Amino acid sequence: MDTPAAGNADTSAPPVRRGRRRAADIGAGARAEIVAAARVEFAENGYDSTSLRAVARRAGVDAALVHHYFADKADLFAATVDVPIRPDRLVAQILRGPRDEIGVAIVRTIVTQLDQPPTSDAFLALLRTALGHEFAARMLRQFLVSEVLGQIVGELDVEDGELRASLAASQIVGLVIARYGIRLGALADASPNEVIARVGPVVQWHLLGGEFIT
Amino acid sequence: MDTPAAGNADTSAPPVRRGRRRAADIGAGARAEIVAAARVEFAENGYDSTSLRAVARRAGVDAALVHHYFADKADLFAATVDVPIRPDRLVAQILRGPRDEIGVAIVRTIVTQLDQPPTSDAFLALLRTALGHEFAARMLRQFLVSEVLGQIVGELDVEDGELRASLAASQIVGLVIARYGIRLGALADASPNEVIARVGPVVQWHLLGGEFIT
Repeated sequence: MDTPAAGNADTSAPPVRRGRRRAADIGAGARAEIVAAARVEFAENGYDSTSLRAVARRAGVDAALVHHYFADKADLFAATVDVPIRPDRLVAQILRGPRDEIGVAIVRTIVTQLDQPPTSDAFLALLRTALGHEFAARMLRQFLVSEVLGQIVGELDVEDGELRASLAASQIVGLVIARYGIRLGALADASPNEVIARVGPVVQWHLLGGEFIT
Repeated sequence: MDTPAAGNADTSAPPVRRGRRRAADIGAGARAEIVAAARVEFAENGYDSTSLRAVARRAGVDAALVHHYFADKADLFAATVDVPIRPDRLVAQILRGPRDEIGVAIVRTIVTQLDQPPTSDAFLALLRTALGHEFAARMLRQFLVSEVLGQIVGELDVEDGELRASLAASQIVGLVIARYGIRLGALADASPNEVIARVGPVVQWHLLGGEFIT
């Protein structure tokens, strides 16, 4: 993860190098150029190996300008894939809640966000791309592991946390595809509360275990 | 994947109509032509509204020839999407087993089949297409509902069986994507038995209920 700050990053930086531009020099197109450069960097190097500095270099702008628009790498990644929700931030919020309600809270958040079609469309487009291209799959995997599952694993503090977080992710991805993508009748039509009641306990069980009695 | 049927299909068939061809008249290309015609029919009309007769008409062959190669519509559909497993047949087999082991049996079957890369690749390609095209999504949905979930709902004989079957499908689709598509580390690396132990109870719970004690 990159620095959350822009502030002191460049205080000791040399004067702007030739060929680079600062915020003052350029207009609204700068952000778009940075995003375009980030797409190429992420595609070529994957999520983990891409740095904001390398993106700045490719965009021909100062690193401070990248930090001006984007707080961190997750922020920049979210802009490149054009998904209007930030799973990394939502998860951070959920993990501050009660431990025995994590599953329900996760599913409630997902359903609330994705019942809005622009959000689910963007999410499905991302998944489709990841299923079609190895580098996109790797990028999505790295993003999920570094920014989303990593937080969960750290917070849960259980054995095999990585497997548990991945299993929870599998139920959530499947829910998104079945309800919003393929739109399987009964699941697509179910009320948010019904979905939360049916899937919340599953996510909770994946994450924290317990006994299952048939 | 081919039909065990065919046998008596042609005994009482009328004489070949002008412009149509029978098995005797044509070579190995006939099956491929029927599959190509079926792709178009499925794409234009969806799974439910496509008949073997309409496929025969489009392919310019006798309906009996379609029945010679394909036992039923599910069989023909499987050929058009080139997926080497037949969920409708596997489900029929699983449903004959013990009721309280259905979840584990389903997950064991899935993992055993998809741990073979050609099978998982074909399955993922189908999902990707369904996520990208409304008609492909509709077709996959109709196939799942008519041929797979319908069997489960009929066998379970529980209230809200359609919702339950859709929820089970959501966990299975998510497992396939996470383990074989995005390949989330810990889940992609887990042994088949581990995956069966973790996901089997979830599928069982979706289908038949029970209790998670967390």
